[in-house]
Amino acid sequence: MNNKFFKFEVIHKSNKSRARVGKIHTPHGTIDTPNFVAVGTNGVIKALDSKTIEEIGVQLIFCNTYHLILQPGSELIKSAGGIHKFMNRQTPIITDSGGFQVFSLMYGGVHDELKSRGTKKHNNSILKITEDGVTFRSYRDGAKILLTPESSIQAQKSIGADIIVSFDELPPYHTSMQDLKKSLARTHRWEKRSLDEHKSNHGQQAIYAVIHGGLDQDMRKESCQYLSGLDFDGYGIGGSLGKTKEQMFELLKYLMPQLPENKPNHLLGIGDLNSINEIIPQGIDTFDCSHPTKAARHGLLFTKTGGMRVFKSGNSQKLGPIEDCCKCFTCKHYTLAYLHHLFRAHELTAYSLATIHNLHFLVRLMNDYREKILNDQI
Amino acid sequence: MNNKFFKFEVIHKSNKSRARVGKIHTPHGTIDTPNFVAVGTNGVIKALDSKTIEEIGVQLIFCNTYHLILQPGSELIKSAGGIHKFMNRQTPIITDSGGFQVFSLMYGGVHDELKSRGTKKHNNSILKITEDGVTFRSYRDGAKILLTPESSIQAQKSIGADIIVSFDELPPYHTSMQDLKKSLARTHRWEKRSLDEHKSNHGQQAIYAVIHGGLDQDMRKESCQYLSGLDFDGYGIGGSLGKTKEQMFELLKYLMPQLPENKPNHLLGIGDLNSINEIIPQGIDTFDCSHPTKAARHGLLFTKTGGMRVFKSGNSQKLGPIEDCCKCFTCKHYTLAYLHHLFRAHELTAYSLATIHNLHFLVRLMNDYREKILNDQI
Repeated sequence: MNNKFFKFEVIHKSNKSRARVGKIHTPHGTIDTPNFVAVGTNGVIKALDSKTIEEIGVQLIFCNTYHLILQPGSELIKSAGGIHKFMNRQTPIITDSGGFQVFSLMYGGVHDELKSRGTKKHNNSILKITEDGVTFRSYRDGAKILLTPESSIQAQKSIGADIIVSFDELPPYHTSMQDLKKSLARTHRWEKRSLDEHKSNHGQQAIYAVIHGGLDQDMRKESCQYLSGLDFDGYGIGGSLGKTKEQMFELLKYLMPQLPENKPNHLLGIGDLNSINEIIPQGIDTFDCSHPTKAARHGLLFTKTGGMRVFKSGNSQKLGPIEDCCKCFTCKHYTLAYLHHLFRAHELTAYSLATIHNLHFLVRLMNDYREKILNDQI
Repeated sequence: MNNKFFKFEVIHKSNKSRARVGKIHTPHGTIDTPNFVAVGTNGVIKALDSKTIEEIGVQLIFCNTYHLILQPGSELIKSAGGIHKFMNRQTPIITDSGGFQVFSLMYGGVHDELKSRGTKKHNNSILKITEDGVTFRSYRDGAKILLTPESSIQAQKSIGADIIVSFDELPPYHTSMQDLKKSLARTHRWEKRSLDEHKSNHGQQAIYAVIHGGLDQDMRKESCQYLSGLDFDGYGIGGSLGKTKEQMFELLKYLMPQLPENKPNHLLGIGDLNSINEIIPQGIDTFDCSHPTKAARHGLLFTKTGGMRVFKSGNSQKLGPIEDCCKCFTCKHYTLAYLHHLFRAHELTAYSLATIHNLHFLVRLMNDYREKILNDQI
């Protein structure tokens, strides 16, 4: 498939690691890679508006199809002229397939499922999983909804992000090898159906596959081989990445060399500060994570020396910015003492100002990573 | 007292009513009157930052001394260089004396007290009222705090607003004529002490008196006479203004002609849309009210035809601005359908965008009122 609206350029490969600097060109502009993708589940980055997000320089945001189809509905977004116009964002957006959230509902989230060691009772919001797709109940009005590869892609077409993601099955972490194999085969069939649906009404969108196979190296290899044989525009890395960061890093070490180098990849749902430092040298191009914005709202401010709690002793008296070197709107205009005061008073403004700072921190951090890769320092 | 840092100019008196257009000049710029004063209790307008407030054109904001002395403390604000620097606002600020909130605590708020018809049990956070002042417990840490005319003024000096307000006693609405008289006499003694304290360390601040006397015309007259005989820079209108708007309008009709015309007045805590239309022709120069910002956070959007609930049927599909004629940041960049979606999803961004709209509405409304007065249409 020759997608003239989407192009990935590799600018430089480090001679020290698999890290690379690239550019993803989309109908709404360019994403410099490697890059952090901010999470805007409901078509908004929490506590900020689209203009502010663009001023900070966040080049790509991740919206969740599951949430958007339940509210306001993909048809409304379509009639608004697509998600860019709906949320008034001029720059790139990616949506997921909705599958992750639907299956997370069943397992109560990956984290809970891990903690439960497989004993967790399944949530009854998923009514049925068949070869066709997944039937679940809307948390909003109890309506039955059938999400299939085709309906997910159609919804993502209505939403109209620059990059969409094929519909996959998310097996629980605690599953037998046999079930994992069955799930992988189904995921591959679903992804092929997603691609076919996408091709039937191509538009200007690009579509990413999602590599599965859990922690099993053979299955991950099989997934890379099968999906890279289809003409997806890029590759998400999904499914279980292990219980610990070390397992994830090991898995990526094995998996990354098997992905086509001429296409962009995206690590789904990972992006805490500790992980970033490990995944960049593995060659990850983009990754999304709600941690920086969620941490901000909980008063964890990112600094060069790590996360700093806004309530840390002494901060109430600190009449300077969060960090002297920071050039973000918050640090240019407000002191840490003021931010401390706003947090303590539960003022909503606190959450906005802290989010601006953390997102700006990530934008600067990713810029630094790209510089280092260009200089073969990583 | 000749205050070279504070000047009030009357630009035009309507020939149709007592309405007047003026300018209050302060060390941080000019306030066009009549004008609405936005409430920023904790040194912040809820859900917005100071830069945004200045862009909207809100010329004066009202901060609460009671809240600020409890947190972050007036000394911290002083060491930050004053409230303007602390909250990074370049334009005028007024603080109250803290008295209103302390007494409201005792009566559980004016509204509650009215509803209780005098039967409401008093809150035990006020420990003692003497000629010296009021001792109360901090809601933050339970510490005993003595607020006197002198300590209120000292705190307001540390906070450093352009306009400060003298310390008064707020009698409950349900009080005997005898008690009201006693309270008025004490308020006058406290206000005189406030003025003396202010004069001992004048600085660049202006000080307003607060006219009391409840609904009793004789006492209101006495209060106007006594306080206008002292060299205050302006006059707040406080105390009980009645149970109904009609009582308040009647009271103002009687009271306003007794205030010196060459000084600005301020109606304390009133500013709903219905009242504004009645108080402007009475000659009110400024008034503060938390309603426009609170209404915004509750999804009540101001329009030319009155308040509109964001959840009103049809709004979820309205792909245009809140009002076509509105030039606010929110209406320029976002649709009502998007705002509806954000409110429904409980996104914090909703509260910011709605607040911007309502404050901009008030700024425009007050501009329109001034135009009309200049043309003798009011």
